[in-house]
Amino acid sequence: MERFEERYEAYRQAVEAFLQSQFTARPHWADLYESMRYSLLAGGKRIRPVLTLEFARLAGLEEWRRALPAACALELVHTYSLIHDDLPCMDDDDLRRGKPTNHKVYGQTLAVLAGDALQPEAFRLILTAPQLSPEIRADCALILARAAGADGMVAGQVLDTLHAPKTQEELAEVHRLKTGAMIAGACRLGVAAAGGSDGLGQAAEAYGYQLGMAFQIRDDMLDVIGDAATFGKPIGSDQEEGKVTFVDLWGLERCDRAVLAATAAAKSAVAPYDADGFLGALADSLSERKK
Amino acid sequence: MERFEERYEAYRQAVEAFLQSQFTARPHWADLYESMRYSLLAGGKRIRPVLTLEFARLAGLEEWRRALPAACALELVHTYSLIHDDLPCMDDDDLRRGKPTNHKVYGQTLAVLAGDALQPEAFRLILTAPQLSPEIRADCALILARAAGADGMVAGQVLDTLHAPKTQEELAEVHRLKTGAMIAGACRLGVAAAGGSDGLGQAAEAYGYQLGMAFQIRDDMLDVIGDAATFGKPIGSDQEEGKVTFVDLWGLERCDRAVLAATAAAKSAVAPYDADGFLGALADSLSERKK
Repeated sequence: MERFEERYEAYRQAVEAFLQSQFTARPHWADLYESMRYSLLAGGKRIRPVLTLEFARLAGLEEWRRALPAACALELVHTYSLIHDDLPCMDDDDLRRGKPTNHKVYGQTLAVLAGDALQPEAFRLILTAPQLSPEIRADCALILARAAGADGMVAGQVLDTLHAPKTQEELAEVHRLKTGAMIAGACRLGVAAAGGSDGLGQAAEAYGYQLGMAFQIRDDMLDVIGDAATFGKPIGSDQEEGKVTFVDLWGLERCDRAVLAATAAAKSAVAPYDADGFLGALADSLSERKK
Repeated sequence: MERFEERYEAYRQAVEAFLQSQFTARPHWADLYESMRYSLLAGGKRIRPVLTLEFARLAGLEEWRRALPAACALELVHTYSLIHDDLPCMDDDDLRRGKPTNHKVYGQTLAVLAGDALQPEAFRLILTAPQLSPEIRADCALILARAAGADGMVAGQVLDTLHAPKTQEELAEVHRLKTGAMIAGACRLGVAAAGGSDGLGQAAEAYGYQLGMAFQIRDDMLDVIGDAATFGKPIGSDQEEGKVTFVDLWGLERCDRAVLAATAAAKSAVAPYDADGFLGALADSLSERKK
């Protein structure tokens, strides 16, 4: 698809501009805003909100910008999860995307509170989204709540951080919950923002889960074969933390095949809808990514 | 009002039963559920959900039980805030309501994650509340998001924990945000769950803020004159933490007068609606509380 990069870039820039416009006031607690903005605007690929916008477009929301508040809401939740995940009592990371982590810059107290504030602010964004009906706002907010909740992303964090997953089944469950739930949620959110069909919603969810699996296995591979400067975090950190990954279980070659298989499954799930191949190209680009 | 205690107890029991029914499944991550339930079911007066239920009744929701999911959702958010507030990087407390704090029992990692999960689960409760329309669900969820967000409760936490408030104005701002926003939110939530009028909504908010102020000044007083066993936490902890309170600024006698004044203001705000005096009796009982 020739115009994949252009459209991705248009989405990404719209997301950056929307996020840039948030939390710009200077209340007495401007330090909270600053800490939130530090992590929110730390770059990243913005895969999740891009997926929301593309699925909104596919579901018929011609003016896909109307899905921006929902798309960015999910990015707020994703951002809070990274801030808390980096805390000393969690993964204890000093670097994220090549920059000092939130608590390294603002201290643990403010990092906890910035993460805590990003969650309700995410729901506020959805629930005040202009040009979306109350029904659609409620649908979108529920999708986000489920993706982020105690049977979604946080469950994955608990298993990953506290249960030392070791078998293929255990690792797959962690990835499905920790990464898959939010990526699938981002896809569904786009369909819901456009008031789209159940058929497309189910395809979006299947695509998201497969993409999440491919993404996470690729992440495990990059922790072994990646370049620290490009990857934005230290190489070998999984091994250092004693985490078992798919690379340990399968080796690099089989992981590569698994990434390709999940990518193919993702593309197949949305084939009837992905007429111009954007979702296919996105899946391919993630499967080959170096960072 | 003779039947105040009975009605309060009926509300409180309904709240306990609803909360008891949550997170009872046994997924692989049952430890997360257990940690959430530990703090959620640790007792407490349940003032906030009781207020939601009473305001729902006043706003015309004859079957006030339909407001239970919204009432309990706010209690989930209140509970997460207590779990995170007790963390070592926050107030570092070992006891809460006479029991070991969440992180003392489950460790910091699970305490952070239990708090993180309670937020989206709160929104899920509202957004799946049976017998409430999508419009009303969206209204309720937005009220909760604003009360809990970066210009509500978390802003108050930031000021209280990191800004060392010292003047009357600074302390009042902390109380308005940290305690008032959620109590006022609880009141508004009841009106919204019943699809009530703007007039009652504004009265509910005014009542909630005044009640919150009285509650918090009384809390400062109990930290000096209270009995540790009754109060459920150590006496003198504010002073030990070097926190300035209204007792430091005003002394006990003027604090007592301020509690009575805020209580009177709360009652006056809802006088046109509080025909049977429940809200008045509740305000009085809080102003005289020993714990």
